[in-house]
Amino acid sequence: MINEQYERMLGAKNIIRVLSEFATERGREIGYDNVFDYSLGNPSVPAPEAFTKEMIRLLEEEDPMALHGYSPTLGNPLFKERIAESLNRRFGMNYTAGHIFPTTGAAGAVAHAVRAVTKPGDRVLTFAPYFPEYNPYVTGAGLTLEVVPADREAFQINFDAFEEMLGDDVAAVLINTPNNPSGAVYTEETLTRLAAMLTDASKKYGHTVFLLSDEPYREIVFDGMAAPYVSKYYDHTLSCYSFSKSLSLPGERIGYVAVNPACEKAEVIVPMCGQISRGLGHNCPPSLIQIAVAGCTDAVSDLSVYETNRNLLYEALTRLGYSVVKPGGTFYILPKAMEEDSVAFCEKAKDYDLILVPADGFGAPGYFRMAYCIDTDKVRRSIPALERFTKEVYGC
Amino acid sequence: MINEQYERMLGAKNIIRVLSEFATERGREIGYDNVFDYSLGNPSVPAPEAFTKEMIRLLEEEDPMALHGYSPTLGNPLFKERIAESLNRRFGMNYTAGHIFPTTGAAGAVAHAVRAVTKPGDRVLTFAPYFPEYNPYVTGAGLTLEVVPADREAFQINFDAFEEMLGDDVAAVLINTPNNPSGAVYTEETLTRLAAMLTDASKKYGHTVFLLSDEPYREIVFDGMAAPYVSKYYDHTLSCYSFSKSLSLPGERIGYVAVNPACEKAEVIVPMCGQISRGLGHNCPPSLIQIAVAGCTDAVSDLSVYETNRNLLYEALTRLGYSVVKPGGTFYILPKAMEEDSVAFCEKAKDYDLILVPADGFGAPGYFRMAYCIDTDKVRRSIPALERFTKEVYGC
Repeated sequence: MINEQYERMLGAKNIIRVLSEFATERGREIGYDNVFDYSLGNPSVPAPEAFTKEMIRLLEEEDPMALHGYSPTLGNPLFKERIAESLNRRFGMNYTAGHIFPTTGAAGAVAHAVRAVTKPGDRVLTFAPYFPEYNPYVTGAGLTLEVVPADREAFQINFDAFEEMLGDDVAAVLINTPNNPSGAVYTEETLTRLAAMLTDASKKYGHTVFLLSDEPYREIVFDGMAAPYVSKYYDHTLSCYSFSKSLSLPGERIGYVAVNPACEKAEVIVPMCGQISRGLGHNCPPSLIQIAVAGCTDAVSDLSVYETNRNLLYEALTRLGYSVVKPGGTFYILPKAMEEDSVAFCEKAKDYDLILVPADGFGAPGYFRMAYCIDTDKVRRSIPALERFTKEVYGC
Repeated sequence: MINEQYERMLGAKNIIRVLSEFATERGREIGYDNVFDYSLGNPSVPAPEAFTKEMIRLLEEEDPMALHGYSPTLGNPLFKERIAESLNRRFGMNYTAGHIFPTTGAAGAVAHAVRAVTKPGDRVLTFAPYFPEYNPYVTGAGLTLEVVPADREAFQINFDAFEEMLGDDVAAVLINTPNNPSGAVYTEETLTRLAAMLTDASKKYGHTVFLLSDEPYREIVFDGMAAPYVSKYYDHTLSCYSFSKSLSLPGERIGYVAVNPACEKAEVIVPMCGQISRGLGHNCPPSLIQIAVAGCTDAVSDLSVYETNRNLLYEALTRLGYSVVKPGGTFYILPKAMEEDSVAFCEKAKDYDLILVPADGFGAPGYFRMAYCIDTDKVRRSIPALERFTKEVYGC
């Protein structure tokens, strides 16, 4: 018999995919250029030229056996070294290559990290609004994911609700800053308070509560700011990173887990990830991509378009009367819908060729997400549509 | 607390890795060229030029966004189509793109396939000698792997032992032909008899017993033969493939599951694999590699060196008095050791700079594996060492 659990999952439609397919369909009728598709978080800027050049150079000059052979179980040593060096230089950390475990993107990173610091049956807490794929990542490891209600003022952390939900069986807390879907960047104050509460909880319950920090948007921060580096604030942190956004390589599945050297049992966590890989059928991210990224760790795609888009949308949304927290980074914004039922709101927006995603699945019912990783020209052209939609349907 | 199960796994040394590291170490002393390293199954021929050319062409000419963007959840449509077309043409199957699920190599393929057709607690049977990584692949899915003792005559299937071990809770049978570590290729007769027994067992127990066919060595077959295509013999077959060997791309993690169109619930198994991926933190194999392989599905590395090496070693081993089944394919050979304790045998061989792997972990105690995916020149130079070792230690 086939596995009924996975078969049942087929029934549940992913609303983002459904909307994205609707946008593609509608594009066939009126030209995709005329569909204001804010559904998918797919980077809209190309990989940096340095990456493409390095790939071509490797393919032309290097031994194919060295390029395409098996990576060592714990990853390509040069890749690991370069990442450690880059994180140390930029964030004042003291990682060695042995603290870095290369993974197939942030998904692979979270899948490994969450297994390393929990046992089946444990609870993992995350904070609304949150990335819905955390559900399969965490439940797939035999754990329970529980969502702490949102701080609706600033999309930081609702510490009162958090405190109530902590308990002996909470093995880890999973955060995402800069945040998908809100665009919020956790402040130093937020991270300091979070660390203090985790330290207290670890003492109270007699075991370390680990912090899993999912940070694929770390480099997309606006207004000349930088995102505080989470691991600086709490020793027992596993940072989960992906080059999907900074190098615009989402399809190449390249990222890592970085284990804080002061973390409990820091020295065994990367080797444990190697063991976890075996059961998951992973065997390191693609070799050539590890080697190429090692050759251009300091290259970053031109991410400025996201800030331009953020500015345009934030200005328009506030002008039209939307209640919205200004995103500090990412390429998402999470305004409050003009009616309580955000599914109905987004359904009506489709009549204006605006593809907006209701945020119920992100733990933020009543809100909607716009993924503004699209051409600035299309953002500009979408604003009159947003204006007509808001005026005609909601009289604002 | 960190996960104790994975921490405990760190204690168990992988003997192949240990021997491979010994070989590297010894190479530093006497030159690696003088170490007859038969430990690792890493392809020794480069990727075909057609692949490298296609990669460079794509990087030079194509839109980086299309190359490096997210693959669709169920894989790149062109890649899937090309694979279906190639399998249909070569093996008389009738796959469509919808029956193909791209994976990160055969490891990813088995990890998905085994979850799709079982529920936690089920038993999975495999046949000795077998690839030891099946243990984590199967137990990682919450299942029990049980090993049917070997047919020591020809390394086909010990059907009597198999029959005894079948039972209501056997959800799937996992085979590997051409076989690592024996090099045996299952014959038409073996596959026909296996299929009949699986059909009988499915009737008897009132549920389909699935066949998982792990076939990364499918294209490495000698003497002008071809390996019978397993799925032709039994409808309820999921074929697990990797391009690691045929295209010499083990590090790029590219393979697939192919679901026989006549398999029970064939139409939902690939979408289910998409759901399984979420819990495992996979999200398709690398995009660029899928696209490049789609552009050269009929290219194959020059695999002839493996047959040359097989001939040299088989001739030498039989001449020296070893009991050995002639491999029909792969780049492995599995002779009987000259003493019962194959670990002791391989330990003594190290004094002659011969790196041989005791096959106890492959379910074949008393045998040793030689991975002859090395330069033919080195194979030639290793034969006098093998001769001296056998004569001096065992007087043969």
